[in-house]
Amino acid sequence: MLDTISAHIRVVPDFPKPGIQFRDLTPLLADGPAFQATTAALAERAGEFDMIAGVEARGFLFGAALAQLTGRGLVIVRKPGKLPAATIGHDYDLEYGTDRLELHADAFAPGTRVLLVDDVLATGGTAEAAVTLLRKAGGMVERAMFVMELDGLPGAARLRAMGVEPVSLLHYPA
Amino acid sequence: MLDTISAHIRVVPDFPKPGIQFRDLTPLLADGPAFQATTAALAERAGEFDMIAGVEARGFLFGAALAQLTGRGLVIVRKPGKLPAATIGHDYDLEYGTDRLELHADAFAPGTRVLLVDDVLATGGTAEAAVTLLRKAGGMVERAMFVMELDGLPGAARLRAMGVEPVSLLHYPA
Repeated sequence: MLDTISAHIRVVPDFPKPGIQFRDLTPLLADGPAFQATTAALAERAGEFDMIAGVEARGFLFGAALAQLTGRGLVIVRKPGKLPAATIGHDYDLEYGTDRLELHADAFAPGTRVLLVDDVLATGGTAEAAVTLLRKAGGMVERAMFVMELDGLPGAARLRAMGVEPVSLLHYPA
Repeated sequence: MLDTISAHIRVVPDFPKPGIQFRDLTPLLADGPAFQATTAALAERAGEFDMIAGVEARGFLFGAALAQLTGRGLVIVRKPGKLPAATIGHDYDLEYGTDRLELHADAFAPGTRVLLVDDVLATGGTAEAAVTLLRKAGGMVERAMFVMELDGLPGAARLRAMGVEPVSLLHYPA
């Protein structure tokens, strides 16, 4: 199953900047059975959870597919100013500057077991911020799932340091 | 089924600006069975198609869920600069200024029947631009689906004028 998935990930050189070999998931999305195999592989490794959290924008794709397959609800973690009702937010540092994620303050009841889903785990900055935000809203986050992880970057260690187990379907060198 | 769906859409007053009654789909996403009912209702009304196109960002949610349910592939229509490989783009006018959508040039083979999916049909600016772009890439677009449509705005008429049938699960006054 993982072979089917990895066969649909392609390398695009020099994106977003020269020297970066970007692993592009769009061919995986474009192949219906391969996309379903990805969702099934995530579900098999998901453990116990009450809701899924998807991070804008590519996390919406895998989070929504997993919600559809498992029948669990989906919480969306968005960029600033996108959510209409009262939000809580978390600012975090990027390589240059800062960014912010927001969540509806009433997105779930305190104590809800939330499974974080995103496409790629790299430096872990976004994932760490999303976990912090979900916990600020009262969520219990014990696992974060990714279609792929770039080894040699600190993402997995940063999550483990927060008590979150990273689970990635595929691993590539950074 | 449509009653279940509409029961999970809430009105948030004064978003994104004073006087606007924003219909918020996040409670629908957060309820697993209601989200699945939405996907099933879209699938029932989808007709024949080869691939689904989801527009960033909320169209990713319903497009991905429909891809998971139907086993069809998903093409993502994104904001500028997000797609790594060669793209084609389409600029379009907003109320103030312009915006642009992009698609991978190799997203699908010419003649592919593409079903456009998004959350809301209102003025139709984004939907019209997405259809234009999908056709520029060689796609055949005959239907566009929305969870809800705001009646009294020109979206549906603009799509029909392009030979695209708009299909919306729910209708609300604009």
